[in-house]
Amino acid sequence: MQPWRDEFSGAFHEHTIQSEALQGNALGDPAERPLWVYTPPGYEASEERYPTLYLIQGLTGSVDMWWNRKPFRPTVPELTDRLFAAEGCPPAIVVSVDAMTALGGSQYVNSPGTGRYQDYLCDEIVGFVDANYRTMAARENRGIMGKSSGGYGAMVVPMMRPDVFGGLATHAGDALFEVCYQPEFRETARALRDHYEGSYDRFWEDFRSRPAFSKKEDGVLLNSWCMAACYSANEDGSIDLPFEPGTGRLKPEVWERWLELDPVRMAPNKAEELRSMRAIYVDAGKSDEWYLDLGAEAFVAELDALGIEPYFELFEGTHMDIEYRYPIAMRYLAERLG
Amino acid sequence: MQPWRDEFSGAFHEHTIQSEALQGNALGDPAERPLWVYTPPGYEASEERYPTLYLIQGLTGSVDMWWNRKPFRPTVPELTDRLFAAEGCPPAIVVSVDAMTALGGSQYVNSPGTGRYQDYLCDEIVGFVDANYRTMAARENRGIMGKSSGGYGAMVVPMMRPDVFGGLATHAGDALFEVCYQPEFRETARALRDHYEGSYDRFWEDFRSRPAFSKKEDGVLLNSWCMAACYSANEDGSIDLPFEPGTGRLKPEVWERWLELDPVRMAPNKAEELRSMRAIYVDAGKSDEWYLDLGAEAFVAELDALGIEPYFELFEGTHMDIEYRYPIAMRYLAERLG
Amino acid sequence: MQPWRDEFSGAFHEHTIQSEALQGNALGDPAERPLWVYTPPGYEASEERYPTLYLIQGLTGSVDMWWNRKPFRPTVPELTDRLFAAEGCPPAIVVSVDAMTALGGSQYVNSPGTGRYQDYLCDEIVGFVDANYRTMAARENRGIMGKSSGGYGAMVVPMMRPDVFGGLATHAGDALFEVCYQPEFRETARALRDHYEGSYDRFWEDFRSRPAFSKKEDGVLLNSWCMAACYSANEDGSIDLPFEPGTGRLKPEVWERWLELDPVRMAPNKAEELRSMRAIYVDAGKSDEWYLDLGAEAFVAELDALGIEPYFELFEGTHMDIEYRYPIAMRYLAERLG
Amino acid sequence: MQPWRDEFSGAFHEHTIQSEALQGNALGDPAERPLWVYTPPGYEASEERYPTLYLIQGLTGSVDMWWNRKPFRPTVPELTDRLFAAEGCPPAIVVSVDAMTALGGSQYVNSPGTGRYQDYLCDEIVGFVDANYRTMAARENRGIMGKSSGGYGAMVVPMMRPDVFGGLATHAGDALFEVCYQPEFRETARALRDHYEGSYDRFWEDFRSRPAFSKKEDGVLLNSWCMAACYSANEDGSIDLPFEPGTGRLKPEVWERWLELDPVRMAPNKAEELRSMRAIYVDAGKSDEWYLDLGAEAFVAELDALGIEPYFELFEGTHMDIEYRYPIAMRYLAERLG
Repeated sequence: MQPWRDEFSGAFHEHTIQSEALQGNALGDPAERPLWVYTPPGYEASEERYPTLYLIQGLTGSVDMWWNRKPFRPTVPELTDRLFAAEGCPPAIVVSVDAMTALGGSQYVNSPGTGRYQDYLCDEIVGFVDANYRTMAARENRGIMGKSSGGYGAMVVPMMRPDVFGGLATHAGDALFEVCYQPEFRETARALRDHYEGSYDRFWEDFRSRPAFSKKEDGVLLNSWCMAACYSANEDGSIDLPFEPGTGRLKPEVWERWLELDPVRMAPNKAEELRSMRAIYVDAGKSDEWYLDLGAEAFVAELDALGIEPYFELFEGTHMDIEYRYPIAMRYLAERLG
Repeated sequence: MQPWRDEFSGAFHEHTIQSEALQGNALGDPAERPLWVYTPPGYEASEERYPTLYLIQGLTGSVDMWWNRKPFRPTVPELTDRLFAAEGCPPAIVVSVDAMTALGGSQYVNSPGTGRYQDYLCDEIVGFVDANYRTMAARENRGIMGKSSGGYGAMVVPMMRPDVFGGLATHAGDALFEVCYQPEFRETARALRDHYEGSYDRFWEDFRSRPAFSKKEDGVLLNSWCMAACYSANEDGSIDLPFEPGTGRLKPEVWERWLELDPVRMAPNKAEELRSMRAIYVDAGKSDEWYLDLGAEAFVAELDALGIEPYFELFEGTHMDIEYRYPIAMRYLAERLG
Repeated sequence: MQPWRDEFSGAFHEHTIQSEALQGNALGDPAERPLWVYTPPGYEASEERYPTLYLIQGLTGSVDMWWNRKPFRPTVPELTDRLFAAEGCPPAIVVSVDAMTALGGSQYVNSPGTGRYQDYLCDEIVGFVDANYRTMAARENRGIMGKSSGGYGAMVVPMMRPDVFGGLATHAGDALFEVCYQPEFRETARALRDHYEGSYDRFWEDFRSRPAFSKKEDGVLLNSWCMAACYSANEDGSIDLPFEPGTGRLKPEVWERWLELDPVRMAPNKAEELRSMRAIYVDAGKSDEWYLDLGAEAFVAELDALGIEPYFELFEGTHMDIEYRYPIAMRYLAERLG
Repeated sequence: MQPWRDEFSGAFHEHTIQSEALQGNALGDPAERPLWVYTPPGYEASEERYPTLYLIQGLTGSVDMWWNRKPFRPTVPELTDRLFAAEGCPPAIVVSVDAMTALGGSQYVNSPGTGRYQDYLCDEIVGFVDANYRTMAARENRGIMGKSSGGYGAMVVPMMRPDVFGGLATHAGDALFEVCYQPEFRETARALRDHYEGSYDRFWEDFRSRPAFSKKEDGVLLNSWCMAACYSANEDGSIDLPFEPGTGRLKPEVWERWLELDPVRMAPNKAEELRSMRAIYVDAGKSDEWYLDLGAEAFVAELDALGIEPYFELFEGTHMDIEYRYPIAMRYLAERLG
């Protein structure tokens, strides 16, 4: 039992980023954001350049939460530092990016419903890090990784911006949208009917008036709306739901827009981009509450069809409390991107 | 507290039907079936003719199960007899039909995967009842009703065979297939992966070797397969699943065949048939585990678009233990079909 | 798939019993009760005498419910008949007794809160059966068996009336009361507070005004009260709860009265009675919702301390849908009590 | 949406305490502990003395975890600072104490099974704070508060050490032990049987070899053992469980030792101590998973019997995510202890 945080062997550096890409975003969220950069043991004393791993949060996650502690467990910064402090793992810089929004997240895409978070990440953050740290400033030496919506970002950002990233790791990343998202639409529709007279405006008004997530339907309501803001917003910032709010009935034309952003559907159209990756790591828990294990299998099946062999593992576990998987992926990337 | 079954005021008559339609069905299920006919109080002494209500079972239900008793509750035969024994409800004959199959049911459609259960019901059973009881032998005087898959049958049979039925009542009937069925595909896929090496053959072998439903995944596995046997079987009796068993990924071309049999999608194409109904009753519990309340709302929305105003009620309750709703629908039909 | 009930090889005989013991019972329940007696294949043609197995129901069970059918499963009468129709099982008469009350059951004890159900069973029913059937009319040839509260009865009745029964079988019988009952008291207390202003009168009024068990708290409320009626009623018929209804706080002096009727506490005081049994069968599911597997282990530990070795098995399963265990126990008793 | 931690108006000061009381504790846990002290806005510039509120953690909580952030919610330090930064709340110093152990906690009592955590808190920590901060260094001006096991500590420490504390606030504090603890014993017994061959040694070995709480039974196993270490350890540090590990059967003589430390049983014996409190605050969620709402009611009933009228509220909510209640209690104490 250790009642203290670890003393770190490496170092965490906190920065503030002024984003141009996020200026005037539809949600009125700040364009100024926090950024954490971890430099591994030995960085200060050396003159070498390092590969860089971009660690992105899941839905409702902000950079601050990486420091959260669970009982008898190391925090993510502690896991990171222990990995790079131990023998045998090649060093890397780890960058933690804030892409939180008033709706819970951005999915790391550009959307008129949330903001240009992909540009912010790929152009502004990467540029800042390369300018201020001794990185190996090439796609071949940059990896991106995350869990859940962070895993989603880790899959799609390299497919859309292969000029920036040459490796990826997804832990239970959102994929196979009819499996991971669609089953919640009926819960959302019922919750709107039973508690909000069918109106999302009423939901948001209520949600913001009390402790967040103090009603059990909050999660699905937020999730359905936030994903629509990321996947099916219109140029004017208005948001199309992929289902009729009164019944949950699918709207095929909106749903089609979502599917275009499903990693499983994107992959066959991004064959060259995916083949150019130096490292692809995929895992998920076999009891994942959103069945992202099936999404992982479907994504891997598409990779397989392209002749790509990723690291792939289904482990015993759910979607929760699986932060101990991060060091496995970090090491996998660090070994291949240096 | 009454430790006895009710003494009935009316009478239940048990018959055996030799079906031609079910001869040689794909599952090898018997062509000989039980049939129960209830005649209301006064039937024996009168010479009048009566309207007829066909009461059909839900998935995994056989006629025998109508007699099941739950604690402190009347059975369905008791509910039926009490309704017609009391003052004020017009008399009707109630017919209970067996359409059970080795897969759990037939959905009351003709399918090469299960058998010609719709023909059996509409031609053979109705013919038998009209020949042997003093019925008002016209579509205007026949109603059909049921719960769950029985409610599904009650919706689609009159749309497909308006020459036979002129009224219908659905309690939590299967409808809006992406809402009621599709969310289970992921559970099915995972269960196949985790317990049956991806093989439905192994599931059925296991299922039939032990007490049925003694494993918690039995329900979704049976349900997905049985519905495919009803909705997407091929002429040779082989069955196409609407999803990839390994991942749960939707197969759009098979799924489209299912949707053609979704009451919500059928309704707009059956405008005249539905307008010709003398009575339409729709209800569901607001906490239905399969979200059939949303299906009910979607079906009613289609009726509304056709200018049809059914009886419609969402009640507090789930999918379970709602047999006390039957007399409400029976009375509704009896009052309108006589 | 068999859409019919089995044709029986043996025969079920329905009787009506006029009980003196139940006359004027506190609940005003009928003194006239149904009784079913099963005679095995060959009974009619033979002149032999048979051992007798008394099959008693669990809480909220009436004899009628033995005939309930679950999908793809034989009913209990079918299981019984198949057992005795098959080669190799010695024949026995099986008697099914009604001991239902307005509170859900009697626990097969005499209580001023419910009635003299133990006398009714041991003196009246047994007397009737011995008088009307070719039984081997001795304790050595009578067994008693049941599940849940029926298993409880099967444990305690032979301890209290060893003159009547010489064998017993308990499936998941109520035992180790602090484990099986006490955890529900807090649920009961909260339900009373939240829905009934702390009043059991209000609960019963509400419960009887609507479909039984349509509210999720009904089960614990009924259970706590019914057990108190059986275990801690006063001579005037009033009922003492073993906890304060406002908080669930245990009342030790009432609880002590319950514990006196706990089979685990009774056993050490009934050493001779238990040693005189010719057959003791104990089982339970390892995932029993009321943890009656622990009760079974505790009861068996007491038997062990007395030098008695019962049949004992913990099987994979819950408290539900375990009627397939009955034939195992029936056979065990039939083989030892003939 | 604010992607940053608050800028604080007051200040948090981190200290390290060298405890003598914890030297040589049975678990080998460190005697050196972290301590956080919050000084409210204006503290630096003033020369006034302030009342002090001791904020203690629940089971498995360490001081570090106060900084955990949940989505769209302020952290506890932020809640604290916002309270004292706003108009109208009298200022107070808030002290956050570490009493974590290798078993998950200490219950803030002295026990040979864990250590002398009550002495450490009441003598060492309080002494340190009074020596280093401008406190009003009297019992009348010290309050103690916490949630869950922290609420337990907030109830019992002032009863045992009224010389130190003159006010208390308990959020869902452990109380009415047969209601909050006993129902878990059966779960513990079953988990030991099914996964650890009945051995707590095997559990701890396994628990420490993998990510903590990655098995669903971890919680009850840890809880039962840790409470026994706090309530029924022997002088030699050995621990007596209050139940038989094989069956969950209560051991009355050990259980009695637990009950002596139940706040509900302690209260009548601590009448003067309780009457001397200047502020008592009690709340709990009506759906608390451990039924600590019933414990709160039982504790308040005992206070009522002593003629003491606390602040008392049952709110809509569970045991989880109720950190927004802390400022309500802090204010209540700050207003009465200054």
